[in-house]
Amino acid sequence: MDAAEFRRRGREMVDYVADYLENIEERPVSSDVEPGYLRSLIPTEAPLEPDNYDDIIKDVERVIMPGITHWNSPYFYAYFPASNSYPAMLADMLCGGLGCIGFTWAASPACTELETVMLDWLGKMLKLPDHFIAGTHGRGGGVIQGTASEATLMALLAARCKTLRRIRAANSELSEGEIRSKLVAYTSEQAHSSVERASLIGDVTMRMVPTDSTYAVRGSMLKKMLEEDKAAGLIPFYFCATLGTTASCAFDNITELGPICNKEHVWMHIDAAYAGSAFICPEFRPLLNGIEVFKNMHSNLINRVKKREDIIGAFNVDPLYLKHENQESGAVQVYFHLHTQYILQTQVALAKEFESLVRADKRFEICAEVVMGLVCFRLKGSNDLNQLLLKRITNSREIHLVPCQLSGVFVLRFAICARSTDSRHIQHAWRHITQLSCELLQENH
Amino acid sequence: MDAAEFRRRGREMVDYVADYLENIEERPVSSDVEPGYLRSLIPTEAPLEPDNYDDIIKDVERVIMPGITHWNSPYFYAYFPASNSYPAMLADMLCGGLGCIGFTWAASPACTELETVMLDWLGKMLKLPDHFIAGTHGRGGGVIQGTASEATLMALLAARCKTLRRIRAANSELSEGEIRSKLVAYTSEQAHSSVERASLIGDVTMRMVPTDSTYAVRGSMLKKMLEEDKAAGLIPFYFCATLGTTASCAFDNITELGPICNKEHVWMHIDAAYAGSAFICPEFRPLLNGIEVFKNMHSNLINRVKKREDIIGAFNVDPLYLKHENQESGAVQVYFHLHTQYILQTQVALAKEFESLVRADKRFEICAEVVMGLVCFRLKGSNDLNQLLLKRITNSREIHLVPCQLSGVFVLRFAICARSTDSRHIQHAWRHITQLSCELLQENH
Repeated sequence: MDAAEFRRRGREMVDYVADYLENIEERPVSSDVEPGYLRSLIPTEAPLEPDNYDDIIKDVERVIMPGITHWNSPYFYAYFPASNSYPAMLADMLCGGLGCIGFTWAASPACTELETVMLDWLGKMLKLPDHFIAGTHGRGGGVIQGTASEATLMALLAARCKTLRRIRAANSELSEGEIRSKLVAYTSEQAHSSVERASLIGDVTMRMVPTDSTYAVRGSMLKKMLEEDKAAGLIPFYFCATLGTTASCAFDNITELGPICNKEHVWMHIDAAYAGSAFICPEFRPLLNGIEVFKNMHSNLINRVKKREDIIGAFNVDPLYLKHENQESGAVQVYFHLHTQYILQTQVALAKEFESLVRADKRFEICAEVVMGLVCFRLKGSNDLNQLLLKRITNSREIHLVPCQLSGVFVLRFAICARSTDSRHIQHAWRHITQLSCELLQENH
Repeated sequence: MDAAEFRRRGREMVDYVADYLENIEERPVSSDVEPGYLRSLIPTEAPLEPDNYDDIIKDVERVIMPGITHWNSPYFYAYFPASNSYPAMLADMLCGGLGCIGFTWAASPACTELETVMLDWLGKMLKLPDHFIAGTHGRGGGVIQGTASEATLMALLAARCKTLRRIRAANSELSEGEIRSKLVAYTSEQAHSSVERASLIGDVTMRMVPTDSTYAVRGSMLKKMLEEDKAAGLIPFYFCATLGTTASCAFDNITELGPICNKEHVWMHIDAAYAGSAFICPEFRPLLNGIEVFKNMHSNLINRVKKREDIIGAFNVDPLYLKHENQESGAVQVYFHLHTQYILQTQVALAKEFESLVRADKRFEICAEVVMGLVCFRLKGSNDLNQLLLKRITNSREIHLVPCQLSGVFVLRFAICARSTDSRHIQHAWRHITQLSCELLQENH
């Protein structure tokens, strides 16, 4: 394909994407394919002769679309919002054209530089304390990770490395193996599964801290566990707090937790993968209060540290082919990608609208406070009843949502995800849920 | 931005990218900015009012382009090739529009399904043994990782987990801590820095295996180290071979190494991040001979295992919000991204052309066999002389390359990278190098 054909096909693709998003409501939000569906639709081996471009594009509708869950559908209420937008797609096209890999400053200086300055912008929008800002002379700053899971893992590994050095410096008689077998990490029992996975990858013990009735970790709960473990000769080193849990959007009490972690030399990391971007809104910023005392935070795909060296020092390997003159300026691995902020206030209003529909119906109950764009609800009754309701919702393919478990109870999560979701879709979704519930309750009587 | 504006701006962006790539030769291949250059070109805080789109696009040339190293320039001979192409950019646009996140099969079945089948296609193109193919009933298969570094790390972690389980099952008196302190990983002293970094993240000892005169690891060298370590009571568990090292494109002798690793229960992983795609060419496929006996391989961003369970079982965390009916079908985390193959044979021919230019000039020497698209060369003389030559090449900004170290000697790496590089650019690059060398040698006399 030459540049002239790319111009023509590029225009067609822009129109295809715009058509797709403008008419997405006409597609069933979720897929009804069976595992293995795709294999029979295409050849078993790569063709030796090139396919015609038009045939390949036809395969998008024939092969791919039947197996797509439409995350941008206004009827998609599962998981959490995807973060694409028209401006983000244009930025991605530009990045694809540049095609540079910014693994060091010299490999493309603009990558590292733009990331550093943009994360300072974001830090200021979040009103973070100055020591989290890189600035021109600061030691803080942020770095974009591929996923929130990576950010959690990187913080855990950096904390492990820093703690091993600190304990060894003070206790030269202890071997590294002895120290590491005593390390204990902590997180909420409501934390995302990627936090526990980070401890498996980092090969350290992780204990789950119980939560209060709002599914938040309080200072007293963590303090009790730290004291128990210290008394048993263990070394607490890492606590991952969550602001906006996946199950119910609960907020750990970081104002209580921060000072405890500081006092005990425990690296405190915040997973705010969902709620983080909301803190740029004045009405939600108080949820971030307490950040001032922090050693470390991460928010929505961003790993932000007070001291860059803690991250850089932990995994520095310096081969000659990556050396360059400006190495000491704090270059770190970067991914060049522009994201846009969600139109969050609208989404919260829609969640509140859905919440009031649920509250007005005595057959249902709300299972957790609605703070942002997530509503946890269920039919009053057994877990089996609610599992059956979700199964029927899923099979209908009119709306798409996923469950969670709160205090052993099976709960339906209704998350406002797509930018295009408006009141009309919320009302339709609720009518659909109540209709399926009516049928279900009648059958059960 | 609405769909109508996206259509208009999308067309403009397609043309901008096509113009950029068609005229890339007119730009200096590398950047002359100083660290921190970008900060002064943009506001210190995010603007409260939105910028005009045209002004943002003007900033691409004003703010970004001065700091870009042009990886797609035909004068870019540094690192290794970037992997974008016109068809890949079109596929990326489509992915951006779909904007779905395929972290489980149900989150968008087409993601997992397409990846599985495409990696079977690739496996067959590479003529891998059947047990590496997923098929409809196989236990093997591949998964795309974000980077080769991630693939190396994941293999090391899976090997660590599998070995811990095996040793504990046979020696119930040993604690996990005791076993893990005895684990030893191995790789070539010529391996990419990401391999050593994987051992730091996985927190296991890694020993560097010496290479022969062609910078390849031979069976006898690894065998000797394994025997030493076993005699000292240690537990060898992982060896990372390289097919196409970063420094000189050397090939470890996997025909010798594979049977040794199998016999010693050592998980053998192949890093073929550069050379892997070449194995689809019949003339390069013999370099992969020996793969038949392998426990595991990875090639060019693909992690391929004989038994999927070894990877899935190591880090499985199963929260309710990710459960779905078809979970047992072998869903793993995926990134949906289409890559295209390099036009590799052309690139090898260009490397051979450059090699013969170097060989014809008695002032220079070739430092490693030219097998694929990489030529390692230097001026006969001191390291200082060659460092000075590279500095002048870099400062001239006409061509861009990076150095490496081979047997303690400072060497220049000339890698054929861009798709648009042709004989004319090679001849120009060589004229440029010899002219700078002439000046340098005259000054030194």
